[in-house]
Amino acid sequence: MLETHAEHFETTKAEEKDTARLEAFSDGVFAVAITLLALDLKVPPVGSTGTARDLVEALLRQWPGYLAFVTSFLTVLIMWLNHHVLFKLVGRTSTQLMFANGFLLLMTTAVPFTTELVSAYASRPGARVAAGVYGGAFVLISIGYLWIWEAVKRGRLFRRDASERTIERINRSYRYGTPMYLLATLGAFLSAHVTLGICTALWLFWAFTATEC
Amino acid sequence: MLETHAEHFETTKAEEKDTARLEAFSDGVFAVAITLLALDLKVPPVGSTGTARDLVEALLRQWPGYLAFVTSFLTVLIMWLNHHVLFKLVGRTSTQLMFANGFLLLMTTAVPFTTELVSAYASRPGARVAAGVYGGAFVLISIGYLWIWEAVKRGRLFRRDASERTIERINRSYRYGTPMYLLATLGAFLSAHVTLGICTALWLFWAFTATEC
Amino acid sequence: MLETHAEHFETTKAEEKDTARLEAFSDGVFAVAITLLALDLKVPPVGSTGTARDLVEALLRQWPGYLAFVTSFLTVLIMWLNHHVLFKLVGRTSTQLMFANGFLLLMTTAVPFTTELVSAYASRPGARVAAGVYGGAFVLISIGYLWIWEAVKRGRLFRRDASERTIERINRSYRYGTPMYLLATLGAFLSAHVTLGICTALWLFWAFTATEC
Amino acid sequence: MLETHAEHFETTKAEEKDTARLEAFSDGVFAVAITLLALDLKVPPVGSTGTARDLVEALLRQWPGYLAFVTSFLTVLIMWLNHHVLFKLVGRTSTQLMFANGFLLLMTTAVPFTTELVSAYASRPGARVAAGVYGGAFVLISIGYLWIWEAVKRGRLFRRDASERTIERINRSYRYGTPMYLLATLGAFLSAHVTLGICTALWLFWAFTATEC
Repeated sequence: MLETHAEHFETTKAEEKDTARLEAFSDGVFAVAITLLALDLKVPPVGSTGTARDLVEALLRQWPGYLAFVTSFLTVLIMWLNHHVLFKLVGRTSTQLMFANGFLLLMTTAVPFTTELVSAYASRPGARVAAGVYGGAFVLISIGYLWIWEAVKRGRLFRRDASERTIERINRSYRYGTPMYLLATLGAFLSAHVTLGICTALWLFWAFTATEC
Repeated sequence: MLETHAEHFETTKAEEKDTARLEAFSDGVFAVAITLLALDLKVPPVGSTGTARDLVEALLRQWPGYLAFVTSFLTVLIMWLNHHVLFKLVGRTSTQLMFANGFLLLMTTAVPFTTELVSAYASRPGARVAAGVYGGAFVLISIGYLWIWEAVKRGRLFRRDASERTIERINRSYRYGTPMYLLATLGAFLSAHVTLGICTALWLFWAFTATEC
Repeated sequence: MLETHAEHFETTKAEEKDTARLEAFSDGVFAVAITLLALDLKVPPVGSTGTARDLVEALLRQWPGYLAFVTSFLTVLIMWLNHHVLFKLVGRTSTQLMFANGFLLLMTTAVPFTTELVSAYASRPGARVAAGVYGGAFVLISIGYLWIWEAVKRGRLFRRDASERTIERINRSYRYGTPMYLLATLGAFLSAHVTLGICTALWLFWAFTATEC
Repeated sequence: MLETHAEHFETTKAEEKDTARLEAFSDGVFAVAITLLALDLKVPPVGSTGTARDLVEALLRQWPGYLAFVTSFLTVLIMWLNHHVLFKLVGRTSTQLMFANGFLLLMTTAVPFTTELVSAYASRPGARVAAGVYGGAFVLISIGYLWIWEAVKRGRLFRRDASERTIERINRSYRYGTPMYLLATLGAFLSAHVTLGICTALWLFWAFTATEC
């Protein structure tokens, strides 16, 4: 019995080793991407504000920047949470998984750009174009998660103790991701608000999906 | 007896695994945020300094920038220390803990912005406004720590070997955090010095609280 | 038998410890370098685009920037993958390995610079110069990998369970790296396309080499 | 005997846990600081170079920037190596160690600033001032290492298996650090070359010290 314990332990150990660097690298990218967002918070130029009231107004005028900061932060945080939930099930890696994960990270680092685009053009003629680009990036992100999931399933990379229920839940929820984001992107032809509304609803959904796991 | 050892070991192992990625991600954010601070140290433009003396004066004139750099660095360092002390007690995660921690990280990455604001407006009419924003950010940060602490207590996420004494000490010290920072923020109506004085006193307090644990 | 297990386990443990910080540091550098690439994605200035169509055109005009972003990302990702495959075989460190790895990281952080250079001068008279610099950087990178590999072989730093087949495969594939990149660099005297063509072919080769391991 | 093994293992495990986050945080700061250096490599503005020859000249004119990049990189790399050697001996943390390490990291993130200062003013009247600031930063860095070392010795934070020989060697080499850097800084009154010469000699010394451990 003791030996079984030890052997079981060693296998789990080896399994962990394999995904450890992939997770560390991904965590690094998520952490850097989320921290770089704060670089866009700019102190109003000292010369341009004469009185205390001027400074208050200058800060308030920056609200789209603050909103973009908080939104991007939440988006990347929820993406990291889902990445975390997903990789808790994974015990080994494959090259396909490496590339699928790389593609997801590529799109993750682009989220600040698309968010800033929407925030900069919120009340301009280009609002719908910006919303379309924003939604389109999330189509690619949802494809990234699907690709990772397919790589894990096809390569049978699951941990031995992976929860069947969590696997089932992810199977179900990922099925709707890409079509919903496609809908959000096409919605930009109607109005930027349609895109942003669907995307916000989906974040809440992913956040709660992550919760239950 | 040997088996008990082994079993105990395995549980601890599994427990560690759960918070490991949360801590790694948080360490990443703290590390990036603290390193980005140095980007604000600017070499004086070569053209603007004719003699060696000019360079000395140009460097000395940058003192508010150096002060902001050191202050932000210490602030983020002490926040990291407290995060470290707190998570030493935690053995498992929950979604609520994930979001509470995410909120704290969001506010952490904003510290360089509020510090720069105070440093830029130190001797300007907007000083009190800047101090108010600075203090307000720390009110939110203290709420972030409280939220994490509540999530840990409510979800019973403590490690089995968590020190009762440390838990008690944190219980006591966190009780005063938010009201004190509120006081510091309201103090900005009187003078920026009131805010900065209270905040500095509180840093020293947190630093020593971390020490004893 | 049980004791043998335990002892074997302890040795492996100690071995892991030694390279863990080297890998963590390298992962950090790769993760930061790959994430910083997204800082070059710039939102078109709001003032410069009057209509929705203007924004579409402004975004499309930025295609060399998007291409440079994706190319640099893939390059750094494949370099990380190969680093990962290589260090899976390594159980101990030496100072020579530390410096060889440091040299590789130095060149890795310069990849965004050389990629941007090529992208900026793609359709300019300086295209061949830019391609030459780009290829030259990869000559140095391939020397970095060779140096790491030599340090591992000379210092007998292999893990005990390192796969002989993988070692053989790396031996063979690294033999061709430096001469091929030299050829790509010299090809810049003919045309920038020769350099970029050979480099792209080599990426695909490294990507698939990593796959089989 | 088996039990002894197991117990020994558990202690070592607990010891590792305590310094793990400190090392991870420090590695993060070193990794970000070293990667940010590459942000100073700037592609020459496309408009300013008409012919291929112009681009070659524009790139060559940037040599002080390349030199500063490589020098800063090597400096931070050697600092990381020494940090690595030092913490291999450390099994537990203390608050004093946390702050000493924090101080070292603060100065580490400032190295790019002082290096850029020296590189920008290399052939200007301010060269000696820049060299003085550069040397002064290394005086503080050497004090940082001394402080860490004192904290480890006073708090008896050594790992049980720490090599006596390495401890002796560090004791001896750290004794000369601060006075030598003070000399280098005072040498700036004579000439910037004196400062830079001594600092370079000391890097080589630290690099080889790290080697032997």
